Amino acid sequence: MPRRTADQLRPIRLTPHTIIHPEGSVLIEFGDTHVLCTASVEERVPKRLSGKGSGWGTSEYDMLPRATGSRRDRDSRKGRINGRTQEISRLIGRALRAVVDLNKLGENSITVDCDVIQADGGTRTAASTGGCIALAHAIRLLESQGRCKSGALRELVAAISVGIVEDQLQLDLDYRMDSNAQVDMNVVMTASGELVEVQGTGEGHTFKRDQLNSMLDLAFGCLPTITDVQQRAIDTPLSESKVTLTT
Amino acid sequence: MPRRTADQLRPIRLTPHTIIHPEGSVLIEFGDTHVLCTASVEERVPKRLSGKGSGWGTSEYDMLPRATGSRRDRDSRKGRINGRTQEISRLIGRALRAVVDLNKLGENSITVDCDVIQADGGTRTAASTGGCIALAHAIRLLESQGRCKSGALRELVAAISVGIVEDQLQLDLDYRMDSNAQVDMNVVMTASGELVEVQGTGEGHTFKRDQLNSMLDLAFGCLPTITDVQQRAIDTPLSESKVTLTT
Amino acid sequence: MPRRTADQLRPIRLTPHTIIHPEGSVLIEFGDTHVLCTASVEERVPKRLSGKGSGWGTSEYDMLPRATGSRRDRDSRKGRINGRTQEISRLIGRALRAVVDLNKLGENSITVDCDVIQADGGTRTAASTGGCIALAHAIRLLESQGRCKSGALRELVAAISVGIVEDQLQLDLDYRMDSNAQVDMNVVMTASGELVEVQGTGEGHTFKRDQLNSMLDLAFGCLPTITDVQQRAIDTPLSESKVTLTT
Amino acid sequence: MPRRTADQLRPIRLTPHTIIHPEGSVLIEFGDTHVLCTASVEERVPKRLSGKGSGWGTSEYDMLPRATGSRRDRDSRKGRINGRTQEISRLIGRALRAVVDLNKLGENSITVDCDVIQADGGTRTAASTGGCIALAHAIRLLESQGRCKSGALRELVAAISVGIVEDQLQLDLDYRMDSNAQVDMNVVMTASGELVEVQGTGEGHTFKRDQLNSMLDLAFGCLPTITDVQQRAIDTPLSESKVTLTT
Amino acid sequence: MPRRTADQLRPIRLTPHTIIHPEGSVLIEFGDTHVLCTASVEERVPKRLSGKGSGWGTSEYDMLPRATGSRRDRDSRKGRINGRTQEISRLIGRALRAVVDLNKLGENSITVDCDVIQADGGTRTAASTGGCIALAHAIRLLESQGRCKSGALRELVAAISVGIVEDQLQLDLDYRMDSNAQVDMNVVMTASGELVEVQGTGEGHTFKRDQLNSMLDLAFGCLPTITDVQQRAIDTPLSESKVTLTT
Amino acid sequence: MPRRTADQLRPIRLTPHTIIHPEGSVLIEFGDTHVLCTASVEERVPKRLSGKGSGWGTSEYDMLPRATGSRRDRDSRKGRINGRTQEISRLIGRALRAVVDLNKLGENSITVDCDVIQADGGTRTAASTGGCIALAHAIRLLESQGRCKSGALRELVAAISVGIVEDQLQLDLDYRMDSNAQVDMNVVMTASGELVEVQGTGEGHTFKRDQLNSMLDLAFGCLPTITDVQQRAIDTPLSESKVTLTT
Repeated sequence: MPRRTADQLRPIRLTPHTIIHPEGSVLIEFGDTHVLCTASVEERVPKRLSGKGSGWGTSEYDMLPRATGSRRDRDSRKGRINGRTQEISRLIGRALRAVVDLNKLGENSITVDCDVIQADGGTRTAASTGGCIALAHAIRLLESQGRCKSGALRELVAAISVGIVEDQLQLDLDYRMDSNAQVDMNVVMTASGELVEVQGTGEGHTFKRDQLNSMLDLAFGCLPTITDVQQRAIDTPLSESKVTLTT
Repeated sequence: MPRRTADQLRPIRLTPHTIIHPEGSVLIEFGDTHVLCTASVEERVPKRLSGKGSGWGTSEYDMLPRATGSRRDRDSRKGRINGRTQEISRLIGRALRAVVDLNKLGENSITVDCDVIQADGGTRTAASTGGCIALAHAIRLLESQGRCKSGALRELVAAISVGIVEDQLQLDLDYRMDSNAQVDMNVVMTASGELVEVQGTGEGHTFKRDQLNSMLDLAFGCLPTITDVQQRAIDTPLSESKVTLTT
Repeated sequence: MPRRTADQLRPIRLTPHTIIHPEGSVLIEFGDTHVLCTASVEERVPKRLSGKGSGWGTSEYDMLPRATGSRRDRDSRKGRINGRTQEISRLIGRALRAVVDLNKLGENSITVDCDVIQADGGTRTAASTGGCIALAHAIRLLESQGRCKSGALRELVAAISVGIVEDQLQLDLDYRMDSNAQVDMNVVMTASGELVEVQGTGEGHTFKRDQLNSMLDLAFGCLPTITDVQQRAIDTPLSESKVTLTT
Repeated sequence: MPRRTADQLRPIRLTPHTIIHPEGSVLIEFGDTHVLCTASVEERVPKRLSGKGSGWGTSEYDMLPRATGSRRDRDSRKGRINGRTQEISRLIGRALRAVVDLNKLGENSITVDCDVIQADGGTRTAASTGGCIALAHAIRLLESQGRCKSGALRELVAAISVGIVEDQLQLDLDYRMDSNAQVDMNVVMTASGELVEVQGTGEGHTFKRDQLNSMLDLAFGCLPTITDVQQRAIDTPLSESKVTLTT
Repeated sequence: MPRRTADQLRPIRLTPHTIIHPEGSVLIEFGDTHVLCTASVEERVPKRLSGKGSGWGTSEYDMLPRATGSRRDRDSRKGRINGRTQEISRLIGRALRAVVDLNKLGENSITVDCDVIQADGGTRTAASTGGCIALAHAIRLLESQGRCKSGALRELVAAISVGIVEDQLQLDLDYRMDSNAQVDMNVVMTASGELVEVQGTGEGHTFKRDQLNSMLDLAFGCLPTITDVQQRAIDTPLSESKVTLTT
Repeated sequence: MPRRTADQLRPIRLTPHTIIHPEGSVLIEFGDTHVLCTASVEERVPKRLSGKGSGWGTSEYDMLPRATGSRRDRDSRKGRINGRTQEISRLIGRALRAVVDLNKLGENSITVDCDVIQADGGTRTAASTGGCIALAHAIRLLESQGRCKSGALRELVAAISVGIVEDQLQLDLDYRMDSNAQVDMNVVMTASGELVEVQGTGEGHTFKRDQLNSMLDLAFGCLPTITDVQQRAIDTPLSESKVTLTT
């Protein structure tokens, strides 16, 4: 298989309403990375927000033990949460809160669970991108039931990884690329082209400002493709559950 | 929807080879109960077995937080494993070990992870039934690579729930039935019709020996149906991944 | 020592009111298996039951570290509860709730603690059988103080193990038998001969339905003997504490 | 019941060999305080001592949940060990190591478990005093089997509490006294009249040096009584298990 | 460096108001042992004291991982608190409560955190001595704001270690002495010369009552020196933060 | 106090060799943010690196409970590590590894502990900047003892925060600024002007690419000032411990 071009995404596949219980759900696939995202609504908020009319949103990310090439032990068996797991959960939570008007949400909490079923690099960006869809479903449901003000979701948010592998820029790193990357960057963007979060890291390498800029160019270049398929998934009616949409 | 007859299973759907990394995997569905089962092989055994030429098999069962009607917190966040989770993990482990010849397995350990994606009653029986398929795939792989002796899987094992709901016998309880059951019984059976495990429990009710016998009749009655679709899933080649088989 | 006949219990010894603080207590011995059972009453119920007028009952089982042939570490030192410990706690809790009318109990919670002082097989059945006595004492005390309605304890519950060892049926397995058992079954029964719970397990073996029936015959056969000594222990006045009753 | 005189112990009762599995065991009672002490031998030592020919001794203290007037939760359920529990375990361990010649013990570890069955004050002193007996049994067994050098137990160790209650000195505080004590002191002494540990604490009160001296006088005054009954328990042959010795 | 004389303290250095946020703080140095003590006030009390008009005081002791010669893992990473850490926290808490009139404190809680920055023996006595200063600052602040009654701190409390090293008495053991001590004793005293706590321990050795008395003589002998520098630190105005006072 | 200009750092103060035990140490102050950084060397590496001749570096970040305006509970008491704490520990570890040649380090592990004594914003950047100094001391020591190859520290690494507060750019945010920041970015840079890590986050806000560029300009603008004082601290001989260097 020839290497993708620098600006080429892996195929994205979205299966909305994939689970019957949650207020929103989607199975998102970036190539061989598959993440199940669900949104759960509760009519209460953390104590510090109580009585202020404002809502809250948070996220929890985890991986099934055999989502990866070799089996990793469950955090629950080890009795402590992996640092990486917590870090990614917090990143996704910030990404989603950036596009939610918490005042319009009313005193509701939305928890977006992102569970990696199969991993091949880019799980946190797939989770953020899919999490936005589950969140949108849940907010739409709340709106339709008059349980929150309209416009609580200001716009869509999407995320993609980009890096430098063997001295070459590459969008949307898979696991093999990621393992060999000199620089690995995650970019969280709104549909309107603003930044929510930039996390660029050299692993045993450093990088220059013009490389940072080139990586941002690639990330913003794929934004319309991602937000288009996201929007279609959000607009899929519940009656068409398990229909898969693609880029 | 009319109530199923006493001896009627929900539709069973099996999608083998559903995940690329594990040595064996299947998505098993009993109606709206969906469980992802994977088998992971490691070339080592617990210390107490080391050097004896014998293998080991174990299982871990868990549920995604929103597999159920309302969200439940992850055990990893609470820092301790739920008693029910451990109890079911141990049950599945015993079921699988009952049909494996650990001496023929050689010094390999197989961990069968059963993660409930969506729950509607009967998760432990679906997990045991699907776990056997993932296990069979893994053992077949080991055999084909000459890493274990042939015949390590003696026969298939399957499980089904049966209970008494509103004074009537019922096979394969869904969540609503299970919540109202006077008696709930899980039966683990081999393909040849022997018992591996019987767990019958009255919840706030008691039951009579003839009721126990009637429930066992129902459980054994559906055994051919289940083992037939299990065998077809086991025989599905890797090239036909994501083809779904039904009862 | 010749092997007991298939239907022969080990001697049962009961010392009621063995501890001064709890609302009910008994030291129960099945041969060399000694379990201290206490019942503790609190005037409150779990939140989900609050305000409904209903009570609750639960159980916690544990073993002293040197109850067994070799010392096992305390769960508190390991920071997690052993799966087996939780599983047995849940079994005993279900057994006791099966014979309590929670509505008559009023908004009281009873916790039955079963701590194994010395183990020689059958600890869970001894604990269930003794737990019923401690529970009966506590309920009688509540009744005498007008803190619950009369008849909250519907009838007695007892438990016994039965198995297949060296291809022969055996009632009330001791540790050596249990270690070699092909099948191990625990039967929880009410004094009136109904089933509360059946848990039969093959360990590396399977079993047939007629064997299951034979095992149940043995279990029900010894029921009058057990409930007789239970009743005598319940009827022992507090002034006769530390008198030991036997089968 | 009139208050005991300042120098009067509660009755001490010792039942040696009370449990069949451990290398040493005794049930010790100081009035209504009952502690089961067992000694467990393992043929290994902590890593830091390995290969030096020296042994090790340690202790673990705990309470059954209903040893006290109101039920306390198990540490294992809370996932952490109570500070008081650890502190007392360490105290008992130091007391026992003070009278053991670790070099003569050889590369054996002895763990003395002290589990409070029923509590009425003075549990740590009863545990230390009883722990010495279980330890002595275990060492005698090792000596008789040629697994350690003779004389590994240098002498007996005993402990007693003493305090100031309502401005009056009192030996061997029970729970009611202890709750009202202005000063509470635990004294660990050898049979030959040397100090191993002195822990005197004012709880919301302070005390003077002459009061400290008077308390020590009381503690040493009862030492012959305690060591006499200890010695008799140690000398009780295994064949006389369950015979109770008293002061 | 010649060994200090038996009654010679290491230099004590106190830097009050060393941290800007807490209600009281001091850096206390006993030679190369450096402990940062802070007092934090909260306007609430533990539930059992609520509504009684009484306050509470507690302490938490810990060590930075490289306060010692070789690095020790953080308790937070191990998921459990070291027994020694808890034991010392409880000792300091008792020492401070001994000199506080909790009724005058009103419904305020004061937590004194003692974190060892650098350790060279005697950390618990330095922590108790410094903790008293931070506590005094916090109480003075509450008094000046009319948030507690005057006189809530009854008098000062100080602590010092004393032991027997190479058969010789020694005040204020440093790490090297402590490691070789036959007897190690911690004495907590009030400024007026009363005892709050005595903890004397032989480590593999025993000791005689006249040695106990000689150790107490040494401890009380240095009390005026310690309380003098404590009082000067307490009287240092906030404007002179980071001025260091010495004995 | 007038607001600092957009490109103005708070005063930086460095006190190298502030602790006697570690192989490297420095107290770093960014205004009122004070972090104690120590480097600890161990002659061993994680198992996965063993025998490859390569070293390892890691970092642990934590805060004293009253480093902040209100007291926060210790992670060790809660039995789990805060997500933020882990995230920052990982960031500092990556920053330090970016400038270490692990092959030249030999099979040594260096742990850099960064403990926040007093917090006023920017603790992670102060910790990274100070951690580099402690690391440099430790590596210099290893080199001087011939325990690693020369040049193991390739160059210095420094970090600074920059953000947008009330619509204005600002370098080096203090706590009050940080609490009100629309965007908060941490930049980790090498002395030669390369990027190691960029983490820019909108909290309830988004930001544009030109704002990202302006923030990077500010970060790089202050780099010479920081690396100058870092170099002076590294070059301070051990004999001048506790001399404080400033920008």
